[in-house]
Amino acid sequence: MATELKHLTKRSENYSQWYNDLVVKADLAEQSAVRGCMVIKPYGYAIWEKMQQTLDRMFKQTGVQNAYFPLLIPKSFLCREAEHVEGFAKECAVVTHYRLKNSPDGKGVVVDPEARLEEELIVRPTSETIIWGTYRNWIHSWRDLPVLCNQWANVMRWEMRTRMFLRTSEFLWQEGHCAHATAEESEARTVQMIRLYAEFAEKYMAMPVTIGVKTANERFAGALNTYTIEAMMQDGKALQSGTSHNLGQNFAKAFDVTFANRDNQPEYVWANSWGVSTRLMGALIMTHSDDNGLVLPPHLAPIQVVIVPIYKNAEQLAEITEKVMPIVERLGQLGISVKYDDADNKRPGFKFADYELKGVPVRLVLGARDVEAGTVEVMRRDTLEKSTMPLAGIADQVATLLEEIQKNLFDKACALREQKTYVCDSYEDFKERIENGGFFLCHWDGTPETEELIKAETKATIRCIPLDGDETPGVCMVTGKPSARRVIIARNY
Amino acid sequence: MATELKHLTKRSENYSQWYNDLVVKADLAEQSAVRGCMVIKPYGYAIWEKMQQTLDRMFKQTGVQNAYFPLLIPKSFLCREAEHVEGFAKECAVVTHYRLKNSPDGKGVVVDPEARLEEELIVRPTSETIIWGTYRNWIHSWRDLPVLCNQWANVMRWEMRTRMFLRTSEFLWQEGHCAHATAEESEARTVQMIRLYAEFAEKYMAMPVTIGVKTANERFAGALNTYTIEAMMQDGKALQSGTSHNLGQNFAKAFDVTFANRDNQPEYVWANSWGVSTRLMGALIMTHSDDNGLVLPPHLAPIQVVIVPIYKNAEQLAEITEKVMPIVERLGQLGISVKYDDADNKRPGFKFADYELKGVPVRLVLGARDVEAGTVEVMRRDTLEKSTMPLAGIADQVATLLEEIQKNLFDKACALREQKTYVCDSYEDFKERIENGGFFLCHWDGTPETEELIKAETKATIRCIPLDGDETPGVCMVTGKPSARRVIIARNY
Repeated sequence: MATELKHLTKRSENYSQWYNDLVVKADLAEQSAVRGCMVIKPYGYAIWEKMQQTLDRMFKQTGVQNAYFPLLIPKSFLCREAEHVEGFAKECAVVTHYRLKNSPDGKGVVVDPEARLEEELIVRPTSETIIWGTYRNWIHSWRDLPVLCNQWANVMRWEMRTRMFLRTSEFLWQEGHCAHATAEESEARTVQMIRLYAEFAEKYMAMPVTIGVKTANERFAGALNTYTIEAMMQDGKALQSGTSHNLGQNFAKAFDVTFANRDNQPEYVWANSWGVSTRLMGALIMTHSDDNGLVLPPHLAPIQVVIVPIYKNAEQLAEITEKVMPIVERLGQLGISVKYDDADNKRPGFKFADYELKGVPVRLVLGARDVEAGTVEVMRRDTLEKSTMPLAGIADQVATLLEEIQKNLFDKACALREQKTYVCDSYEDFKERIENGGFFLCHWDGTPETEELIKAETKATIRCIPLDGDETPGVCMVTGKPSARRVIIARNY
Repeated sequence: MATELKHLTKRSENYSQWYNDLVVKADLAEQSAVRGCMVIKPYGYAIWEKMQQTLDRMFKQTGVQNAYFPLLIPKSFLCREAEHVEGFAKECAVVTHYRLKNSPDGKGVVVDPEARLEEELIVRPTSETIIWGTYRNWIHSWRDLPVLCNQWANVMRWEMRTRMFLRTSEFLWQEGHCAHATAEESEARTVQMIRLYAEFAEKYMAMPVTIGVKTANERFAGALNTYTIEAMMQDGKALQSGTSHNLGQNFAKAFDVTFANRDNQPEYVWANSWGVSTRLMGALIMTHSDDNGLVLPPHLAPIQVVIVPIYKNAEQLAEITEKVMPIVERLGQLGISVKYDDADNKRPGFKFADYELKGVPVRLVLGARDVEAGTVEVMRRDTLEKSTMPLAGIADQVATLLEEIQKNLFDKACALREQKTYVCDSYEDFKERIENGGFFLCHWDGTPETEELIKAETKATIRCIPLDGDETPGVCMVTGKPSARRVIIARNY
């Protein structure tokens, strides 16, 4: 089993296969019996839970409250906003019946044709329609605004080509849906949330992101404007990691949601929505992990420290355990999650490989000689460096080391992104170099036609128009027409 | 609006209407546009979140890990276990298509007949089948056992008559699914979890429950044995509040899940599953609340203390606020959630009524005279008693009061249950008295026929055979045949 654990495709051989291998071998997720849907295994789910808890706290600090809206959406609701239905109708699971019955041939059950729904129900691909249908009853006056709701939920989009975490038919996410009295307030909240996502990505996931605006082609179906955070994976491809949409008054108009303003005049409500999903798990994996397995930033690792004893007999184990217990206790006091793995049915070598594969940030190993010498072997997962340290005060040392690892992972990811970000002014040059991945800062004439040409010829897309950064005008690298500023072009997940 | 808030049907007039009114007026939930599905509003969801967090911590302390399994279940999976499909097929939402298309008449969208699924998918009514289909790949040897997984999820059962929280087509719940090497271990876990639910109900919900075994008629579809916790609502009706099922080897056999035991012989795995749902919200409401609105036990109240200032001008408000801030801080240190409501667009009377309706356990009111006198008015929601207390040390006094309220609510509920629990040996007597509600401890001959007769004639069911308690034999009150022990019979939600 230990050798099987080790057998992970190398990134340099096949990055895509490495990712698929890792997701399964590190016990994060697996394909289910349902096409395109995954099972999130306990270890993978524990990481997602840490993300959820952190984001949930951050949302609540900005005044957001959680709520829950129905899974199923009446078909007519989806149709109310013209662009929205266009964007989602082609990939949705449709509930048409509400009962099965025994098969006439006596084998199993069949759909009962008499239990056909009058109106079909759609498994939510996103909840703007059902939520704005609900807000209609909640909002009457400017005093009822803003409404700041979020829900943690499962959603479904019938994707043709799926990859675990990155693109699955069912996925878990959160979707925030805010209602405001003014366009300015709604825009401010839209930007606030994309900046919150960026802060989460950088502080907790140790993943640098670029905040930007999507082009019209890449906008959310029904939005005036979509903000995005784009991260660079190790292979130089982009991963859209979170979005925040300014929906203007589109959904308020579609569902007739008005409020009496301070002058007692009716006005349509202003909306925004914002979400991140289990896709972040894919981003986390592809930002930090290596050929030995997962590398987790300490702030999101379910187990931050593992302690493995090396012993020949019960007496030695007892001596080691006596030294380990105060460390476990002190780490607990420091809010650090620790696992003391004294299981005797697995060899230390197996344990080492397994915790490496699972990305546990720090490993402590204690043998009989360490007990005598008052030392402990410390390994950090990010660099795989080992060192021998004094047992005295080790818990506090580990706390410092965890922060160092967190910072190192972020710095490494920043360095890679810098190394693979190019200023490029020649389309010929671009077409050649895009094969090797990377973010290209290019001038673009702002037309959908040029954008589509680039996509058709190079499989690269405009990831975003960066929010912060250089705003020098120039000329489009494809058409030579004027360009207001450089945009980021890349291939993407 | 303040008068509107107050208009709640009295319990004595119409208990059922009182419940429906309260759910809506206290902002807990409302009907959605989808038949039988509710919207859980932020205040209701905040209570559910407190329940979730507490239960989740309790589960994890017993070694359970969270995971996530697909929403949709292939129809053929549901059919594998004969009793299971019989129990659930008649009330499930069926996904038959995966795409909509523009309607030929140009109006809206219709189901695309070409996008029909080869095999229909069922929106999970419960997840035994998909999970045991998955466990097949996880379990090979006794070393892989036990598997202790839980998921927090939405499920759907197409109920014909729905009531918010108590019976809705979609509801939120947790479902634990454990796999064990021996029958004894699985039975022990089944009982451990029902006892955990009982502990949660009594300690956090302040709701006394009776632990018992369901009769064969009332068992979960596919279980050998179902344990239940039954609570008594204020009207004397029972509410099944949580169940834990010993599934024997039924699902292991249906999905061919075997493991090599310590002698390397293949054996089928032993299973149990256990769950509680948003139904607990209904139980919580109907156990404690009164004609003024919700009454929440402090351990589950999203806002435990509200502070309302009474002032005539900004200067007075500033003086009051200066006194309030240290109280808010100290309450925070004690881990007590507090809201200082100094909003100036609502009158104090409105605030009082609103927080009463929402069941906030303790209200502090500070006026200018209190500031002078160094006092504060304290109201406890459970008894509506007001008292004037010294400002000095008030936060610590409130902490003590909250525990007192928690205990008082439990004691009151216990007293009501005792008052409405009857030993009854005459069926004629039973038929008359059951009209007024209550738990009846009766002898029953153990046959489904007698059980069904009682149900048909009185609308009452055997709620459970209590696990702890009197085991004196006797004779069935209906047939006069021998009875092993008394069971609890009641009408139920």
